[in-house]
Amino acid sequence: MADNIDAGPTDCDPVSLMTDTAQANINRSKYGSWRSIGTAETTSLTSGFPYPESFPTDQLVKSIQTVFDEEGDQALQYGGGEYAEKLESWIASREADRGIDLEESNVLITNGATHAIDTTCRAFFRPGDTLITEEPTFLGSIRTFKNLGINVVGTPLDGEGLDVSALASELELRRHNNEPLPKALYTTPSFQNPTGTTMPKRRRERLLELATEFNFVVIEDDAYRDLRYEGDPEPPLAALDDSGRVIRIGTFAKTIAPGVRLGWLVAAKPVREAIETLFAGGKNTFTRSVVGHYCADGHFADSVPTLKAEYARRRDLMLDALESHMPANVSWSEPSGGFFIWVEIDDEIAIDELLTEAIEEGVSFLPGPMFYPHDGGENAFRLSFSHVEPSEIEDGIRALGTAIHQHKSH
Amino acid sequence: MADNIDAGPTDCDPVSLMTDTAQANINRSKYGSWRSIGTAETTSLTSGFPYPESFPTDQLVKSIQTVFDEEGDQALQYGGGEYAEKLESWIASREADRGIDLEESNVLITNGATHAIDTTCRAFFRPGDTLITEEPTFLGSIRTFKNLGINVVGTPLDGEGLDVSALASELELRRHNNEPLPKALYTTPSFQNPTGTTMPKRRRERLLELATEFNFVVIEDDAYRDLRYEGDPEPPLAALDDSGRVIRIGTFAKTIAPGVRLGWLVAAKPVREAIETLFAGGKNTFTRSVVGHYCADGHFADSVPTLKAEYARRRDLMLDALESHMPANVSWSEPSGGFFIWVEIDDEIAIDELLTEAIEEGVSFLPGPMFYPHDGGENAFRLSFSHVEPSEIEDGIRALGTAIHQHKSH
Repeated sequence: MADNIDAGPTDCDPVSLMTDTAQANINRSKYGSWRSIGTAETTSLTSGFPYPESFPTDQLVKSIQTVFDEEGDQALQYGGGEYAEKLESWIASREADRGIDLEESNVLITNGATHAIDTTCRAFFRPGDTLITEEPTFLGSIRTFKNLGINVVGTPLDGEGLDVSALASELELRRHNNEPLPKALYTTPSFQNPTGTTMPKRRRERLLELATEFNFVVIEDDAYRDLRYEGDPEPPLAALDDSGRVIRIGTFAKTIAPGVRLGWLVAAKPVREAIETLFAGGKNTFTRSVVGHYCADGHFADSVPTLKAEYARRRDLMLDALESHMPANVSWSEPSGGFFIWVEIDDEIAIDELLTEAIEEGVSFLPGPMFYPHDGGENAFRLSFSHVEPSEIEDGIRALGTAIHQHKSH
Repeated sequence: MADNIDAGPTDCDPVSLMTDTAQANINRSKYGSWRSIGTAETTSLTSGFPYPESFPTDQLVKSIQTVFDEEGDQALQYGGGEYAEKLESWIASREADRGIDLEESNVLITNGATHAIDTTCRAFFRPGDTLITEEPTFLGSIRTFKNLGINVVGTPLDGEGLDVSALASELELRRHNNEPLPKALYTTPSFQNPTGTTMPKRRRERLLELATEFNFVVIEDDAYRDLRYEGDPEPPLAALDDSGRVIRIGTFAKTIAPGVRLGWLVAAKPVREAIETLFAGGKNTFTRSVVGHYCADGHFADSVPTLKAEYARRRDLMLDALESHMPANVSWSEPSGGFFIWVEIDDEIAIDELLTEAIEEGVSFLPGPMFYPHDGGENAFRLSFSHVEPSEIEDGIRALGTAIHQHKSH
């Protein structure tokens, strides 16, 4: 059915009617899908997938059976039944335990974290409006912002997450020059994707001061919060805010499974209400009900210690291997949680060539530029330890060391 | 967390930063949720829910167990496994059987039909662009269009669906007056919600001629296609189109269950590609895999005859009861499929008062104005026969007749 418009838009085909953003989306990405990086034989350090054994398939089947036995059709009907509602109250109670002052009506369940980010941005942004994000940041969020025609401005990170001094300078400069101020700032304050860094409390407080002074919203993406491997948790931004300007986002993708497609957001009531109205269509009541039972019946809490231990083991194996096999001009982050290590090379490199060479050596990574909204990241890349088999980590990192060493000596 | 902004937007709270559309979404609806219409004792003829016994809970549990046994974690991982892919090929094959010239790569699975409509509109529309829709039409679609700031223009229906002559006049007038032409037209050509009407083939062909002449896209919402109770099916608009300007939308909400939250669209490849890029976040691989097994294993096809027989029985009971209990000034549609009957009263009535009086008599309906993008529908309402217990239909319609009779004699 598409043959006659495959050649590209003319004045009288459907593509010509699409928005500029949608037209640009056709074959836009330089890298294509990151999933196509590497071969079947490559040790893949690219993907932020959870490891396969982490999925609680047996318990999910039991939860499904229980939900159907107890509430029959309600779990499959528009709106859902009691187990779907239990999920909202369970999330609210858990967020309250983290110091957030909220009611159940502040919680909105979404089809995953990115759905929450997308819909939040749709409520706040018109094309051309400005958003500030950490740089580098989650590539899925960059795509979401660009799809909405948002003017994305990056602010640097260091080893303690978002550099709030650099942010303050950027904001003051914009005010001084009468340049547009941001409507929102997007941050992953804990175990950031891709750097693994975490903002300490004093930076979080300073960020909120700036948000008040310059009147912007803070989108707090806390996708990795449950997966802290040591130390005490930092307070969520939403727990430090009393002005209703933090919109907090979480997900079950890393702690139950991506395929249940469930996340949530916590927001001031009028904001939550406007965002919910933007949700197009009904709720995935089936997965909500099943996960509602799974969480309310204690299985989520029971599973987290095992997940932490398994991910910490993978992280330690990767950090040890980096110590053993990286040349002297290479440095990397040491995350206390999450899935990712960010590697920087203190030399001019050609990152795409290095990736090709690494794949020839049998290992793959995601190039730094994928995590930058504009230019940047040419001497960096992301390693993920979440999905690779532990037994493959050392060989993979050794191969990476060989590739970097050879690239250096070009 | 929201207390200090409940009083409404000021210049320095998060609500003030939202788009006009999002701000307007806070408490916008005149009727609130239609779910709040009536009481626990009312015979509800409001909801387009499937009847509870239609949900194949036992087979879904078996499908889940089979999927987990055969592909383990793949069904819960980002991307999904073979059963998720089977769903795409099953849909493509079924659409091909209906005369549509397509490949699997023309199919895009969505989180339900409304998600498909919303994302399609996001690809084509900027705020202020014009869309033409049947009037009355599906209230969820009206909300979707308004959330995107679309300028919605209604064109009348008659007993054979969209009035293509009226549409041609509207388009010619707009061209003559240099008024904006539509980027898209939205139609439910078969068993329309709320009127139950179906467009014959000659009207479908004329619509496509107009789409070519005036260069707009046609969004074909075919949510009820599987539920035809007599006669031969009309060809889908997508089967009559060879220009790639029809975007066709389907759903499993009525034939499996709303809670699995799965629909699809069929579009020319560049259009499909742009729309997919606008999808924010990963796929609901779990429900895709389960429904993929359910369909590929033959259970969908096996279930449709039972669904048709049950819905046809309910429709017949309602049509018979209308014949018995309606006053002479009332007329109604006689749908050959779908869930809905549209009732019109040939007198000036106050529809909201009539609803209140009907609820006092023990029956509820959805008022006509809910299905109009602007004004209209004041002497009409929608009845649904899909969810009510068959044993309650006659009493409900009798109560409705009493309410109309009493209202008339005011």
